[in-house]
Amino acid sequence: MKDRVVLAYSGGLDTSVAIGWIGEATGTEVIAVAVDVGQGGEDLETIRQRALDCGAVEAYVADARDEFASEYCMPALKANALYMDAYPLVSAVSRPVISKHLVKAAQDFGATTVAHGCTGKGNDQVRFEVAIQTLGPDLKCIAPVRDLALTREKAIGYAEKNNLPIVTTKKNPFSIDQNVWGRAVETGFLEDIWNGPSKDVYDYTDDPTFAPAPDTVVITFKEGIPVAIDGQAVSPLEAIQQMNHRAGAQGVGRIDLVEDRLVGIKSREIYEAPGAMALIAAHKELENVTIEREQARFKKTVGQRWTELVYDGQWFSPLKKSLDAFIDDTQKMVNGEIRMDLHSGRAVVTGRRSDTSLYDFNLATYDEGDSFDQSQAKGFIELFGMSSKVASSRDQRLGK
Amino acid sequence: MKDRVVLAYSGGLDTSVAIGWIGEATGTEVIAVAVDVGQGGEDLETIRQRALDCGAVEAYVADARDEFASEYCMPALKANALYMDAYPLVSAVSRPVISKHLVKAAQDFGATTVAHGCTGKGNDQVRFEVAIQTLGPDLKCIAPVRDLALTREKAIGYAEKNNLPIVTTKKNPFSIDQNVWGRAVETGFLEDIWNGPSKDVYDYTDDPTFAPAPDTVVITFKEGIPVAIDGQAVSPLEAIQQMNHRAGAQGVGRIDLVEDRLVGIKSREIYEAPGAMALIAAHKELENVTIEREQARFKKTVGQRWTELVYDGQWFSPLKKSLDAFIDDTQKMVNGEIRMDLHSGRAVVTGRRSDTSLYDFNLATYDEGDSFDQSQAKGFIELFGMSSKVASSRDQRLGK
Amino acid sequence: MKDRVVLAYSGGLDTSVAIGWIGEATGTEVIAVAVDVGQGGEDLETIRQRALDCGAVEAYVADARDEFASEYCMPALKANALYMDAYPLVSAVSRPVISKHLVKAAQDFGATTVAHGCTGKGNDQVRFEVAIQTLGPDLKCIAPVRDLALTREKAIGYAEKNNLPIVTTKKNPFSIDQNVWGRAVETGFLEDIWNGPSKDVYDYTDDPTFAPAPDTVVITFKEGIPVAIDGQAVSPLEAIQQMNHRAGAQGVGRIDLVEDRLVGIKSREIYEAPGAMALIAAHKELENVTIEREQARFKKTVGQRWTELVYDGQWFSPLKKSLDAFIDDTQKMVNGEIRMDLHSGRAVVTGRRSDTSLYDFNLATYDEGDSFDQSQAKGFIELFGMSSKVASSRDQRLGK
Amino acid sequence: MKDRVVLAYSGGLDTSVAIGWIGEATGTEVIAVAVDVGQGGEDLETIRQRALDCGAVEAYVADARDEFASEYCMPALKANALYMDAYPLVSAVSRPVISKHLVKAAQDFGATTVAHGCTGKGNDQVRFEVAIQTLGPDLKCIAPVRDLALTREKAIGYAEKNNLPIVTTKKNPFSIDQNVWGRAVETGFLEDIWNGPSKDVYDYTDDPTFAPAPDTVVITFKEGIPVAIDGQAVSPLEAIQQMNHRAGAQGVGRIDLVEDRLVGIKSREIYEAPGAMALIAAHKELENVTIEREQARFKKTVGQRWTELVYDGQWFSPLKKSLDAFIDDTQKMVNGEIRMDLHSGRAVVTGRRSDTSLYDFNLATYDEGDSFDQSQAKGFIELFGMSSKVASSRDQRLGK
Repeated sequence: MKDRVVLAYSGGLDTSVAIGWIGEATGTEVIAVAVDVGQGGEDLETIRQRALDCGAVEAYVADARDEFASEYCMPALKANALYMDAYPLVSAVSRPVISKHLVKAAQDFGATTVAHGCTGKGNDQVRFEVAIQTLGPDLKCIAPVRDLALTREKAIGYAEKNNLPIVTTKKNPFSIDQNVWGRAVETGFLEDIWNGPSKDVYDYTDDPTFAPAPDTVVITFKEGIPVAIDGQAVSPLEAIQQMNHRAGAQGVGRIDLVEDRLVGIKSREIYEAPGAMALIAAHKELENVTIEREQARFKKTVGQRWTELVYDGQWFSPLKKSLDAFIDDTQKMVNGEIRMDLHSGRAVVTGRRSDTSLYDFNLATYDEGDSFDQSQAKGFIELFGMSSKVASSRDQRLGK
Repeated sequence: MKDRVVLAYSGGLDTSVAIGWIGEATGTEVIAVAVDVGQGGEDLETIRQRALDCGAVEAYVADARDEFASEYCMPALKANALYMDAYPLVSAVSRPVISKHLVKAAQDFGATTVAHGCTGKGNDQVRFEVAIQTLGPDLKCIAPVRDLALTREKAIGYAEKNNLPIVTTKKNPFSIDQNVWGRAVETGFLEDIWNGPSKDVYDYTDDPTFAPAPDTVVITFKEGIPVAIDGQAVSPLEAIQQMNHRAGAQGVGRIDLVEDRLVGIKSREIYEAPGAMALIAAHKELENVTIEREQARFKKTVGQRWTELVYDGQWFSPLKKSLDAFIDDTQKMVNGEIRMDLHSGRAVVTGRRSDTSLYDFNLATYDEGDSFDQSQAKGFIELFGMSSKVASSRDQRLGK
Repeated sequence: MKDRVVLAYSGGLDTSVAIGWIGEATGTEVIAVAVDVGQGGEDLETIRQRALDCGAVEAYVADARDEFASEYCMPALKANALYMDAYPLVSAVSRPVISKHLVKAAQDFGATTVAHGCTGKGNDQVRFEVAIQTLGPDLKCIAPVRDLALTREKAIGYAEKNNLPIVTTKKNPFSIDQNVWGRAVETGFLEDIWNGPSKDVYDYTDDPTFAPAPDTVVITFKEGIPVAIDGQAVSPLEAIQQMNHRAGAQGVGRIDLVEDRLVGIKSREIYEAPGAMALIAAHKELENVTIEREQARFKKTVGQRWTELVYDGQWFSPLKKSLDAFIDDTQKMVNGEIRMDLHSGRAVVTGRRSDTSLYDFNLATYDEGDSFDQSQAKGFIELFGMSSKVASSRDQRLGK
Repeated sequence: MKDRVVLAYSGGLDTSVAIGWIGEATGTEVIAVAVDVGQGGEDLETIRQRALDCGAVEAYVADARDEFASEYCMPALKANALYMDAYPLVSAVSRPVISKHLVKAAQDFGATTVAHGCTGKGNDQVRFEVAIQTLGPDLKCIAPVRDLALTREKAIGYAEKNNLPIVTTKKNPFSIDQNVWGRAVETGFLEDIWNGPSKDVYDYTDDPTFAPAPDTVVITFKEGIPVAIDGQAVSPLEAIQQMNHRAGAQGVGRIDLVEDRLVGIKSREIYEAPGAMALIAAHKELENVTIEREQARFKKTVGQRWTELVYDGQWFSPLKKSLDAFIDDTQKMVNGEIRMDLHSGRAVVTGRRSDTSLYDFNLATYDEGDSFDQSQAKGFIELFGMSSKVASSRDQRLGK
């Protein structure tokens, strides 16, 4: 019996060609696996049939949208994950869930190898292969573009020669990856980092310069997760979808960044993540109201490490699990409502309300009802500043 | 001879009354010190004369605007200092420069005590007193509002009884502090954190909802400091002022935050910092282009600690100096130009250009000229993921 | 009915006098609470009776040794908690468990106030009062030595005048605190930090200079906790006690340190913690064998923050709980045996054995059986060093 | 003209054979470079001649001992660099200085490639190659053992066949690397991590179990660097050498560790570093006396990152330079004397004396002269514990 390869299949030209290309190059049977993480486009059944038409011996499709939203996007929200303070890990959180389905398919269909369509200079090859090796330590990984010399030009030639049921247009000027958490665009004229993005780069967001009337939204959170919008219960997936729609209409969540890749180079990236960016803004402010100061300060350090780790493809690593244990503990009291104005590229919190609030009106107010004993401040300042004072006395004595 | 007290003098009702109030309560002579950090309002000579008219034995005024911009705001810019990812330390960076002038005046005029107008529940009392004790370990500190029971009502009564040359209107509903780096507003109806800010809260920024046509600006940095705007050389002070004007006209830099105070309570704060927020956005992106990845990642940790430390009033502490040494070393190559669109509350970088760039087109491009050797990736991924893979093999073997 | 005060009672002169002193100074009834955390000395019943004889209206005693070992010392072990890399938090971990019993007694006996015997310049007053306020936010705290002017001399005079059943010798030259996790000694001639400690300072450890023959011990851990010694099952308390005995006989665990107190001053401290130091050394090496690299690296940061937080009296803080969640997650695989030589002040690991080991002989060996593919290294090095290489090329091009 | 390769030459079998082996395999001329970092053994001139006898076209030898001690070991001392709290970076600090000389020789002799003797599974290949690429971005790297299949057996055969002037004994059971900062031993029966080290593993240290009479030493530091021992001025190199001798005679500085390698595996390592370990212990305690608390706490984080970075071969990286800037700033006041007892494997500080001390007897003492105002403590505790108290009130109200 032939060895079998599971291929991460998108339905597009490159991976359609890869079905036959891998088979010919390695003498294996190819099983196509397509995972819906909210990227939109064709329905799964159409994609499944195309894989079979292109020569796959099996085709496995999975609607992983709810799983992706609940188990991958929500942890990113709880971590307020913004790589380099900017990028909400759009592709980085989708690779692990896709890998999980690839490994499952490999086990179900008896494959020894997993193939993905990434090049050899990006982050996603690392994310796929580290995730796959972690979930299936016995599996091998190959990347036809990187390892089997499958270029765009060869793919077009192969598709035409073999009459594959796939359109072989000229390449889109951009390389695009998208899912419900956001959309990433790179290459083309954007590789000149002095060039601003053109309008055709964007798809999830309308132009913030010409925005419709402001939209006010109230988001209810429970343990750090959005559970209702404007009073209507929502699932995590629905929360992201609705916020993508409403914040996207206002041009919220466009990101333009020179980014440090894991492979050691800097690249220029454009992202759109209207739902993710609006939800993170709301979530952070609710944390400000409900999380104690020192816990909040250290959570920033934890969140930064979580974000770097996930960016670097270590979703299934032991450290990631331990960081999640920390973060989950901090979220137990992150309950309440955030009112937010969406307008013209801005998602601005204007109100917060919480039964688990640590904001204490009577301690904070300068008006009647003030319960804060100001006489305590003198002693606090004296001891709080003591160690610096002793040091500066020393320095002044020594004439420094 | 009487003991002497140096008083931080604003020219307003409270500190004008404090001149006599302190004198009567403590039997000392009062020297008024007014420091211009770009807060606007009356000229220094007018303020100086009023202090004398209110009974000060000496009045010292200092135009510290350039000093403040260069030596206090620029380090905050180099640190990308945003407390809780939001607040650019408006008041926190002004307290040390004012304290420096207070201590200098105390030494020049032979005073044993420094007085300031802060209450006993805010951060600024700590910032003043820790700074003063550090710079002048022999000086005592008093706060008439906190320590000598000088309430607003008593101040009005005292001013009227003594015919002080100062207007005794009803209190502004808000408590305001402003300087060239920004403006802080608190109390009043904002103490209900569900209330959104009303229009009259703002002064440095116009309403972003009704913004004029977009404004494009090119900022040139040298070692992390803005040195030219649209090709015209500027001082740090001028850079902030011009960006306050241009970004403020677009409604950039409004901040609404529930904030963790050093004294252990949460408070609701509104800030405006159009220049600061636009400059920080530009500076961060130039860092993305010019600073190596690991240096950038650790600089975030350093910047967070710097920000907490300065927020907490430790400007003159030994740790602050050492953090500055780290940050300054990272800024040596932060040179180049950032093009930014200002519009409707957004300050968005659209281009970057630098002789010290680490962005390497030939490494980054997917088009012709690609010099990145993709065959290296396989070995990198294998070893990069090794420790997680070994751990997951263990866990799977043990059935976890 | 009179107000009631719960007093942390040791049975010694100061707190015996405090029973009456507090009553007279505040007009309250005093309930004495003695908590056994393994400090040795008199039995609890003797102490209980003395409290009543000295005027306490109630006396509550608790054998908290197992609770202390399991719920307070074991988390410190899992965190490898060494403040300033040296001090195993001897007093710092006992204050929370004592506070818990004080608050419980206050609730049981209807007291409004808790009193402790600390001075106003140490850490323990903070640890007691912050813990008490956190567990019983409505309780007040007083410290007779600090707040009611109860000096040593006054205590002796009071005891003699009132014929209290307590020996009123001259003060021990040292101030001592001890429990099963260790022993702390300060003041006296040790306040001259050039002076070495004299032999009479020590009690838990014999002189390491004249040690008996080496002692080899095998400690078995389960999820980070010692569960057997030399194959005999032990409780956490027994593990500490046995290691105190055996490591103490070899002079292990003497510490001499200039330490940064929370109240802003430096003090000189001598500690003995033979069991704690030996257990931590064993635990750390077992972690080296069983915890993945990145998890281990970040755990150091978490452990440092845990240690500072507990030193600073924040045992019951929200951050402490979240850090525990992280640490507990890391301990799930910390199982196995450590063989250790105890001799002449040294506790040295010589062997480790674990079913959950991540040490893989076949990957590590340079002999037969080597399964490590060395050809992967080249690609790894190239990409691992890429970002530094790009930076140095830039710097060399610019002549820096 | 032939291409030229610079070879890191030790004078031993493997690198002597590599001279010819590389020449035959690659058709290049080989230049041998030997760098003295205090590893002992043969003198440089003997080694130089052997290289020429083995076929090197040039041989370059450098006495880098002072340079190594001053510019590589002293920064490690200032950082208190102990990887995994245990390993003083013995090999990790020598690779950069050797690389510097290799690159210099390559430039002087017109070589295009640098060769080193490391295998493909250790850290040192990474340290060499990343350092070389950083200092000479145009140079290529090769490793005959890893890349040209030069095994021990082949080396013996080649040496015998070609009558190389080198002894071809059976392999030492251990792999050893040594320099003035310490000595590293691995492989052999140590690869079974349950085995304790045998006596023949050690060379720099005598058996601590049978130690001579205790030795007391006083070390004087200036800005973190040892400048005198027992009152006699010493260079950094002399300080390390003398402490190696004296601490080594007492068995100080033996380390036995399961270590996380950069290439993702765990390995078992034995180290001896008597001088390094004694100097670090002394330096840390002098820091405790002279560095302010918050500066000291953050320096631990910086030191941990410095240590990981240097372990990981990033000596010449931008982040390393910035961390050095931080560390150097902290060392300005690390002046004074440390008295230390060396005995039986222990290096114990017993006294410290410093003109730049922050230990203030009058603040610390509980005896006469106490200048600490204990009344300040109450207010400090209240505000220091405020945020936790508010959080626990919330939690209790909600029944958590």
